Amino acid sequence: MEEEKRPILQFAPFQSVVDEGFWHRLSSLKLNELGIDDSPIPISGFYAPCSHPQVSNHLTLLSESLPSEASEKSSTSHGNRNRCWVPGTLYNTNTLETYHGLDKQALLKAEAKKIWDDIHSGKAVEDSTLLSRFLLISYADLKKWSFHYWFAFPALVLEPAATLNDIKPASQWFSSKEAESLSAACNEWRQMTATADVPFFLVSVKSDSSVSLRPLKDWELCDGDGQQLLFGFYDPCHLPNNPGWPLRNLLALIAARWNINKVRFLCYRENRGFADLGLSLVGEALVSVPTGWRDHDCVPTAVGWELNRSKKGSRCISLAKTMDPTRLVVTAADLNLKLMRWRALPSLDLNVLFSVKCLLLGAGTLGCQVARMLMAWGVRKITLVDNGRVAVSNPLRQSLYTLDDCLNGGEYKAIAAVKSLKQIFPAVEAEAVVMSIPMPGHPISSQEEESVLNDCRRLHDLIDSHDVVFLLTDTRESRWLPTVLCATSNKITITAALGFDSFLVMRHGAGPFSLSINMSNLSLSENKGKHRLGCYFCNDVVAPIDSTANRTLDQQCTVTRPGLAPIASALAVELLVGILHHPNG
Amino acid sequence: MEEEKRPILQFAPFQSVVDEGFWHRLSSLKLNELGIDDSPIPISGFYAPCSHPQVSNHLTLLSESLPSEASEKSSTSHGNRNRCWVPGTLYNTNTLETYHGLDKQALLKAEAKKIWDDIHSGKAVEDSTLLSRFLLISYADLKKWSFHYWFAFPALVLEPAATLNDIKPASQWFSSKEAESLSAACNEWRQMTATADVPFFLVSVKSDSSVSLRPLKDWELCDGDGQQLLFGFYDPCHLPNNPGWPLRNLLALIAARWNINKVRFLCYRENRGFADLGLSLVGEALVSVPTGWRDHDCVPTAVGWELNRSKKGSRCISLAKTMDPTRLVVTAADLNLKLMRWRALPSLDLNVLFSVKCLLLGAGTLGCQVARMLMAWGVRKITLVDNGRVAVSNPLRQSLYTLDDCLNGGEYKAIAAVKSLKQIFPAVEAEAVVMSIPMPGHPISSQEEESVLNDCRRLHDLIDSHDVVFLLTDTRESRWLPTVLCATSNKITITAALGFDSFLVMRHGAGPFSLSINMSNLSLSENKGKHRLGCYFCNDVVAPIDSTANRTLDQQCTVTRPGLAPIASALAVELLVGILHHPNG
Repeated sequence: MEEEKRPILQFAPFQSVVDEGFWHRLSSLKLNELGIDDSPIPISGFYAPCSHPQVSNHLTLLSESLPSEASEKSSTSHGNRNRCWVPGTLYNTNTLETYHGLDKQALLKAEAKKIWDDIHSGKAVEDSTLLSRFLLISYADLKKWSFHYWFAFPALVLEPAATLNDIKPASQWFSSKEAESLSAACNEWRQMTATADVPFFLVSVKSDSSVSLRPLKDWELCDGDGQQLLFGFYDPCHLPNNPGWPLRNLLALIAARWNINKVRFLCYRENRGFADLGLSLVGEALVSVPTGWRDHDCVPTAVGWELNRSKKGSRCISLAKTMDPTRLVVTAADLNLKLMRWRALPSLDLNVLFSVKCLLLGAGTLGCQVARMLMAWGVRKITLVDNGRVAVSNPLRQSLYTLDDCLNGGEYKAIAAVKSLKQIFPAVEAEAVVMSIPMPGHPISSQEEESVLNDCRRLHDLIDSHDVVFLLTDTRESRWLPTVLCATSNKITITAALGFDSFLVMRHGAGPFSLSINMSNLSLSENKGKHRLGCYFCNDVVAPIDSTANRTLDQQCTVTRPGLAPIASALAVELLVGILHHPNG
Repeated sequence: MEEEKRPILQFAPFQSVVDEGFWHRLSSLKLNELGIDDSPIPISGFYAPCSHPQVSNHLTLLSESLPSEASEKSSTSHGNRNRCWVPGTLYNTNTLETYHGLDKQALLKAEAKKIWDDIHSGKAVEDSTLLSRFLLISYADLKKWSFHYWFAFPALVLEPAATLNDIKPASQWFSSKEAESLSAACNEWRQMTATADVPFFLVSVKSDSSVSLRPLKDWELCDGDGQQLLFGFYDPCHLPNNPGWPLRNLLALIAARWNINKVRFLCYRENRGFADLGLSLVGEALVSVPTGWRDHDCVPTAVGWELNRSKKGSRCISLAKTMDPTRLVVTAADLNLKLMRWRALPSLDLNVLFSVKCLLLGAGTLGCQVARMLMAWGVRKITLVDNGRVAVSNPLRQSLYTLDDCLNGGEYKAIAAVKSLKQIFPAVEAEAVVMSIPMPGHPISSQEEESVLNDCRRLHDLIDSHDVVFLLTDTRESRWLPTVLCATSNKITITAALGFDSFLVMRHGAGPFSLSINMSNLSLSENKGKHRLGCYFCNDVVAPIDSTANRTLDQQCTVTRPGLAPIASALAVELLVGILHHPNG
């Protein structure tokens, strides 16, 4: 039989090319919007007529392949002439096990059925972009920044396979006049917005050698009126004897809808943005319509899972190494917090935490731990006030310092703490203020008067320019002036204090209902009726005096149960988080 | 009047020289034994006959000037020929305010009265070392390693003052024969153990020019038997015209007991360890016994507070800069703990904590914080087991890591944690073990079998060689094998585990009464009747399986309230401290 000698028509498969931006946006989408929702997501791939062997058969995914995030405006256009749109579906699983357990055959079949349905309904004739589809299954490990993924480019299988009568460069197929006219028509088609990214079309060659391109749906109009018709498609392949993958579903459409046995096709390829008829191919394929294809319910077999180094297999990419470490840390920090929002604490408002400005008075045992806790909760604007230096007895309990900070007389605590916070989380906006807090009961000389008044003004300005003040010093009297200033400025004020066996965490300053927290700019504006809370000194009739005077060493602040400061600090920060999330503040 | 033309006898005062070792031992004594007890402490000063202008008038305090600590055996001898003993009294106050508020006049008077009493009772004649006394007031700031102090060398004041008939080098006073005999007698006196450090003596010059030294108490025997008698004393002074300070109280004794008006004295001085009669002086002083001195109740006026740069004033020395930083940190770490023993927690047994060996399984959020807490409580032997590497999302919650540990794929957590612990407290004996904990429900291939069995053996050996095991991993099944091994080895086992809003801290393994904690070597030996506690798995009928399988990101361990790990860790470590201090374990 003559047919048996004819070679089978073989297609070069798509190769997926995923830009890192895609994975970044996927991570962000998953973390910020989707949470545990693992419904399929419509995504877009892009390809172009081949212009270079190095990009041959590429189906490219970019960050814009994913739905834009709620906060962004999406552009309406799908693609452009160099990025012809291919609709896809993303199945991003929540766990690696689910990923590996996906029923890949069923998924491919479902995607193929969409193509089949569009062929039967005629939608694919109206909008030929629907003929090429792809699907992507993935698992994004947002902790390690690694992504497991596998692409499929579903192709409906003709049984028996199409065979090839002939295939040759288009420049040899057409007369020079036809070729000239075809080039012009193609370039025009590719330059018009309406058709630039329409990947399937008709090539009509009239008897006068004039060639025009027409949409696929014109087939029924043109058929039988004497012109020669070829089926054209943007071919991502550069091979001299094989068409690219898109032709498979085009042949399926032709066979299923129009029952044509001898199909002439044009593999349209470009060079430097212009039709290149030396690269482009024209072929003639013989197609038998498989039995049962007329029956809509019979979905044809589909193939198309991408090979990984010539074998079927999942791929994995790790972005951790290529990412800027600082950015990695910031995203990783967000990760832990955003994951809390998925289920455990959906109401957690990270924007409030990101933007609230916290002033920490004291950078000792409490100050260090409160700063760590604030950062762990997502607070990024932290100012630390302390006038002391790091002493050798500090690092064991003051968790931001090491032995290095004690050398040469000791670094200022505020400065060492800020340095340490940045080593933990480089995006923190931490500031160090080395100053004393003026204290009642600590007499000053007349020479010191001016500088103490300056400290008062400076403290006032610091409190004014922050949203929340933590009082974390080690004497009663150092809490007095800040307490008064916080009450005056109506600031959220949180006091933490340690005894040996006991601790105090309390809120004063601005009370519930006295603040309306404006989420957009986080300015804390007063309502008409202030509701202030009693403070540390309110039920304490003893005037603050110098409590450090005549204290023995074991009466000083470091003599506490070592576990107390972490407990008090954890609760103090959770108190703030609670206040910031309560509707009445 | 002839007397008025005679010059007043002037004495070169003592100068205090305090070795750093004295302050170190004082710190240790205060911290470990005295606590807030500020009773006066008997101390010792040392001086020697002057041998060099550079050490002229020195009264030296060394570490052995303080009572030896309970744990040490004190040597019975007070001094030797180059360290003649001077009894002193130390008033070390608890606060700087008390120090400055001390009634220095009263203290000096009290010390002078001791001398006066010893003169009157005759004790000072029997034991002439009692004639020179000193007192030291101090405040030791153990946090800053600075020491405020002031010496007094009480001298009874003769009124009117003694005047000087003559003073000249001994070599000019004595005939050469006498001088030769005197030198020999002095050298013999200084070489005999019984007399080497006896600072006051009689010099008897017979008519045959032979000279002998005799104890002071022989005065009454010798007086009036025709020999010439001089009062000799070890003179710390090198000046050619002035005797040193010890002569003052000797003159007082002579005047008060024996009522001698014309006193000949020998200022005994040495050069290179031998009597030097060219340096030594002989003088003749005229003394009037002050009125009322016969009355015991009339305590003479005393002087003697040391001058600081020619003015009366307290001195301060800071040792922080000269101390080895590592040693400083160790002592500072001890400081916080030892201060707890003064009043807040007198029963705190630091030796148990210093020597208990803790094995931490897991160096994540809990492992880091438990290690910090253990160190803060004084635990120094810590082994950390983890097979993971530090990831960028870790430092915000895992308090031993910084961004640097995440570079180049991340350091092993166990190794990074140990490095960090040493930066906080260089004397910690921390070890890192990078290994996996074999887990039920996590199938292994036959190739892995040998290495997993090795891990089992290694874990067994690790548990065996420690006293306490903390289970701080992030899965249920990784706690299974250690739980079983701890029960078998009868080890104190503490489990800490985090949920999002909840945590668990529990004790299992060895229970109360099952251990007798041997304080001396801390071996935990079993009693006959074991009392074991129920474990993590006892009331849990579900077999451990791979719980990490199919967990979404937000179901993994880092999704907890950030404040939870510090709270759970603080309580887990306090649980251990409690167990170690309970009489029944």
